[in-house]
Amino acid sequence: MSKYTELKRECYEANLQLPELDLVIYTFGNVSAADQAEGVFAIKPSGVPYAELKADDMVVLDFENNLIEGKMRPSSDTKTHAFLYKEWNDIGGIAHTHSTYSVAWAQAQMDIPIFGTTHADHLTNDIPCAPPMSDELIAGNYEHMTGQQILDCFADKGLDHKEVQMVLLGNHGPFTWGKNAAKALYNSKVLEELAKMAYLTLQINPDAPRLKDSLIKKHYERKHGKEAYYGQE
Amino acid sequence: MSKYTELKRECYEANLQLPELDLVIYTFGNVSAADQAEGVFAIKPSGVPYAELKADDMVVLDFENNLIEGKMRPSSDTKTHAFLYKEWNDIGGIAHTHSTYSVAWAQAQMDIPIFGTTHADHLTNDIPCAPPMSDELIAGNYEHMTGQQILDCFADKGLDHKEVQMVLLGNHGPFTWGKNAAKALYNSKVLEELAKMAYLTLQINPDAPRLKDSLIKKHYERKHGKEAYYGQE
Amino acid sequence: MSKYTELKRECYEANLQLPELDLVIYTFGNVSAADQAEGVFAIKPSGVPYAELKADDMVVLDFENNLIEGKMRPSSDTKTHAFLYKEWNDIGGIAHTHSTYSVAWAQAQMDIPIFGTTHADHLTNDIPCAPPMSDELIAGNYEHMTGQQILDCFADKGLDHKEVQMVLLGNHGPFTWGKNAAKALYNSKVLEELAKMAYLTLQINPDAPRLKDSLIKKHYERKHGKEAYYGQE
Amino acid sequence: MSKYTELKRECYEANLQLPELDLVIYTFGNVSAADQAEGVFAIKPSGVPYAELKADDMVVLDFENNLIEGKMRPSSDTKTHAFLYKEWNDIGGIAHTHSTYSVAWAQAQMDIPIFGTTHADHLTNDIPCAPPMSDELIAGNYEHMTGQQILDCFADKGLDHKEVQMVLLGNHGPFTWGKNAAKALYNSKVLEELAKMAYLTLQINPDAPRLKDSLIKKHYERKHGKEAYYGQE
Repeated sequence: MSKYTELKRECYEANLQLPELDLVIYTFGNVSAADQAEGVFAIKPSGVPYAELKADDMVVLDFENNLIEGKMRPSSDTKTHAFLYKEWNDIGGIAHTHSTYSVAWAQAQMDIPIFGTTHADHLTNDIPCAPPMSDELIAGNYEHMTGQQILDCFADKGLDHKEVQMVLLGNHGPFTWGKNAAKALYNSKVLEELAKMAYLTLQINPDAPRLKDSLIKKHYERKHGKEAYYGQE
Repeated sequence: MSKYTELKRECYEANLQLPELDLVIYTFGNVSAADQAEGVFAIKPSGVPYAELKADDMVVLDFENNLIEGKMRPSSDTKTHAFLYKEWNDIGGIAHTHSTYSVAWAQAQMDIPIFGTTHADHLTNDIPCAPPMSDELIAGNYEHMTGQQILDCFADKGLDHKEVQMVLLGNHGPFTWGKNAAKALYNSKVLEELAKMAYLTLQINPDAPRLKDSLIKKHYERKHGKEAYYGQE
Repeated sequence: MSKYTELKRECYEANLQLPELDLVIYTFGNVSAADQAEGVFAIKPSGVPYAELKADDMVVLDFENNLIEGKMRPSSDTKTHAFLYKEWNDIGGIAHTHSTYSVAWAQAQMDIPIFGTTHADHLTNDIPCAPPMSDELIAGNYEHMTGQQILDCFADKGLDHKEVQMVLLGNHGPFTWGKNAAKALYNSKVLEELAKMAYLTLQINPDAPRLKDSLIKKHYERKHGKEAYYGQE
Repeated sequence: MSKYTELKRECYEANLQLPELDLVIYTFGNVSAADQAEGVFAIKPSGVPYAELKADDMVVLDFENNLIEGKMRPSSDTKTHAFLYKEWNDIGGIAHTHSTYSVAWAQAQMDIPIFGTTHADHLTNDIPCAPPMSDELIAGNYEHMTGQQILDCFADKGLDHKEVQMVLLGNHGPFTWGKNAAKALYNSKVLEELAKMAYLTLQINPDAPRLKDSLIKKHYERKHGKEAYYGQE
């Protein structure tokens, strides 16, 4: 029985949900779960089909990418996860997928406009699409610098990662995060749905206006504000 | 055994159908069931996943939003339901979802044109899209005024809620209703299908004409008219 | 044990496949099976959910719409079926659905162009879309004249119903037929797939050319010609 | 017990996956598995529904299309498979489907542009669409010349079949291949997903740029290069 059994189980269960939620085919995605107090995270091993995964296969690393526990090679995107956990010490889960509609917006290199209250129930901004990295960064420590690219995008646009828990990497796909792996996964599914809704909206009306500020504020606040009245607490 | 056991069960079963019919992800929708004679309705508790719901979790309120029975906080959209039950005393069920194609039309701020007999089998008008509310109303008693916004939309367009049992709220999504919760739910599914059909129609032919009046009348009447011959009665 | 037990079973089983094949929601479709030697056909009762159907519920009528056997009211589209069975005495099954992509083309009032070999494997012509009926015919014996409208469309376009086993009714939806109910059902599913493929083709390339004649002929002949070599006979 | 029992089983299992992966309806596809050392391949019998297949029904032929073992008529596309196995003696599986989005691009007669890293994870080029064959070739040994058409397309575009394991046949549909039947099948599913992503990308942004060279190289190399670090070996 490992010290990290529970962390690995959390990670494992979230990864199993990726195909259940129609967010991936084959091995096109990964979820990690972090223990910020311990400075470690568990992540899916690289290239292993979800159906063959066991909880104990999850790989545990620290935020400098040092192996702590595990026999398999971790996800090829591991350094991006580590970077974000180190920078944002209030998040406990990260998900990365190649879900269809989210990837389409990423390939279109466009932010997803906030068109409705479904979007405003989750965040008050357009969903940012970070530009593709410079050739220098790509040739270097690529996955590490992918984390930097996300950070720079948030700085440039003045976004707060506590509110905006999702990003598109230009020409690549979505990363999402949250207080734990389950919330990161939830954000991946919500993003995919928002991406599809926004796509359809523009097909029906290319001049569809953004949601007006009063509605953005109302819907976000009723769910996340100090006087929120959504949910059971 | 509560006086409202049957009403709560009707409400509960309709809510369980929301994910079954692919109308919602997570907790993105709610159905209520009313007893107009008693002046009460049962509604889904706020933010509780459908898989975790029990029939007894449904919350019973009167049309002034006073709690009659239940331990949980009701749906954040409860006041809209209460408003409509009070105004329209011949309806017994209301459904609200964020289904994908219906939301896309709502975000496009466009009525769904009546393009075919599938539509005319259910109503003779375009499916109305109510404009977003004014900033003043949003800042006030928002969910209550959402009901007013629907009422105003029907008055402006000269629509009868007994025939047109569905509406899109601009930038938000659909509300549907009917004689009971099951019928309201049915209308949500039909609306989503009509929204998808109309979207595809305009993609194929941006100049597609509305259905002509003689066919609108024929199909509506054969199903709902005095001499209807659809169904078993 | 009725003389028509087998016919009703064939009809019943084909109707059950409608929701299985994603061709209908609720009661949005019907299949019939005919015995041309006896001059009768079995058809789904009107408005009854597929899940509640029993084989014995199927209604048997002759081609003049006289009731032969059954306790329920037959499909509201019954007269269209009867008309076609009487006119085309070599067909043994008819299916009618409101499947999404087929309806979209019908609402666009456009023939579905023959764009590829998937289409040519089944027929050598564009899938015809009959124009909406005149107001006079609609006000008259509507479902009977719907059959006439199909016949007129085939005459105008010089089509042979033995090869082209499908049609779109403008603003309404598809009718398909075949040697028996199973084949009619098969044609409904194939039509829906061809409708989706053609829709996507035009979205990708609005100037996509029709399939050239040599390929149309080759694919149709290898499956249906005298020297066909597709399948096991 | 036949010498080819294992080969037929590999072929059979891959064919069963075609409907499971939503790549076909009815009998719209076939997979073969080759033993290059023996110079033979097993392929699905023509026109038999997947649900009725038995492993022993697979037909074994040599690369000159001579029957080696089996009682049924092989797929009508058999000669195309034989041609490619003979020309490319390092492949062990071929799949052919009429999957929806791949067919749409084939009908549009357009290469699928490389828009993102999902694509670059698998190949560094646009997915080629071979032009429709000349009328002379169609009238001749059609399925054999279909293989030639693929070969010519790869020669014209300077592509290597070891890297680009997929092609669209103009107005027809996709062929994919790989080291074995399972890999060929995998490539069919990946192609279908890439086809859908590229379609959506162009709908959102008709001017979407191709993925830049540095990212194409990075993603392909990290998965397939000499210093690949994706997967467990």
